[in-house]
Amino acid sequence: MQIVPPALDRLIRALSRLPGIGNKTAARLAMNILRRPRAEARELSSALSELHDAIQLCSCCFTFSEDEPCVICADSRRDGALICVVEQPGDLLAIEKTGSFHGHYHILHGVLSPMDGIGPGEIKIEELVARVRSGVVREVLIATSSTVPGEATASYLIDLLHDKGIILTRLACGIPMGMDIKYADRHTLARAIETRTNAD
Amino acid sequence: MQIVPPALDRLIRALSRLPGIGNKTAARLAMNILRRPRAEARELSSALSELHDAIQLCSCCFTFSEDEPCVICADSRRDGALICVVEQPGDLLAIEKTGSFHGHYHILHGVLSPMDGIGPGEIKIEELVARVRSGVVREVLIATSSTVPGEATASYLIDLLHDKGIILTRLACGIPMGMDIKYADRHTLARAIETRTNAD
Repeated sequence: MQIVPPALDRLIRALSRLPGIGNKTAARLAMNILRRPRAEARELSSALSELHDAIQLCSCCFTFSEDEPCVICADSRRDGALICVVEQPGDLLAIEKTGSFHGHYHILHGVLSPMDGIGPGEIKIEELVARVRSGVVREVLIATSSTVPGEATASYLIDLLHDKGIILTRLACGIPMGMDIKYADRHTLARAIETRTNAD
Repeated sequence: MQIVPPALDRLIRALSRLPGIGNKTAARLAMNILRRPRAEARELSSALSELHDAIQLCSCCFTFSEDEPCVICADSRRDGALICVVEQPGDLLAIEKTGSFHGHYHILHGVLSPMDGIGPGEIKIEELVARVRSGVVREVLIATSSTVPGEATASYLIDLLHDKGIILTRLACGIPMGMDIKYADRHTLARAIETRTNAD
């Protein structure tokens, strides 16, 4: 006997495919959707159904975009000679929120991870090299995550680009703003000491 | 300048209306959906769009159901004289999973919470009284949560039903199965001592 109605079960199964959403959370979300106005479910449904049609990857920087090229690549006020390399479009959004970067981006769509079968051919590295070879690039800021695969990808990129006559930079590592030093992990603290900056 | 494409932003806003899903989680989910096969988004979209059409409340017990009455109310092998009162359809599923209950249910769709403006008229209490009055009910098992509003709702129901000539029961409170006694909170332990059972 199926206690969960099939239509509800179908939604629960579809929701539980999302990352970080297990069966219990999916059931809770689905029942909540059912209890709320029908218009909200319809809005979510329609946003989902138009998503893939509306959005492609920008052919230049490979971020998600409805325009070609994307609004950042098309913005003449931004510095096209400075490229920030990030893993995913979400990283671009995080950097844009700072308001501190005024160049272009390059989204790798992943990191090197030989264990998972992700080599240089699986992410947008060749496309980055082509952009550098085009001659308009002055500086590449490598902003991959400070994780093992992020660092490995950064090293690979540095090896690949160090002789291309451009400036290669990385995000500074150190104590997060507002953090009490005694709560910083020792690797971060060690790095902050090694890369200490002039105080005046 | 809108960095997030409008179609993606629309999905993020729709997802962030779900309970326990903030803006950051919604953005992570939306980008994950965008990276995965279009068919998965379509499946989720279609499950959402058919949800409210397919599912109603059973007119007898008020659980979510595609059939009228629901499969439980329609099952002649179950004991219709024993009614388990729960707050939400999710509680029914949890009890069904135990396989230990073979009666019918009554879903209140909420608990009494005067602070939130939820009085007896806002949840399915009148309907429960009508079922009891119909004369077929022998026992009502009150299975509201062991929270302050759950207990208040249980007390209200007991006041309301104690003179209706039926057996009123509640779920036993005590030490969860498999729990080390030293980790039980003192209220639970006190209740377990007060309501200790015969060992033979």
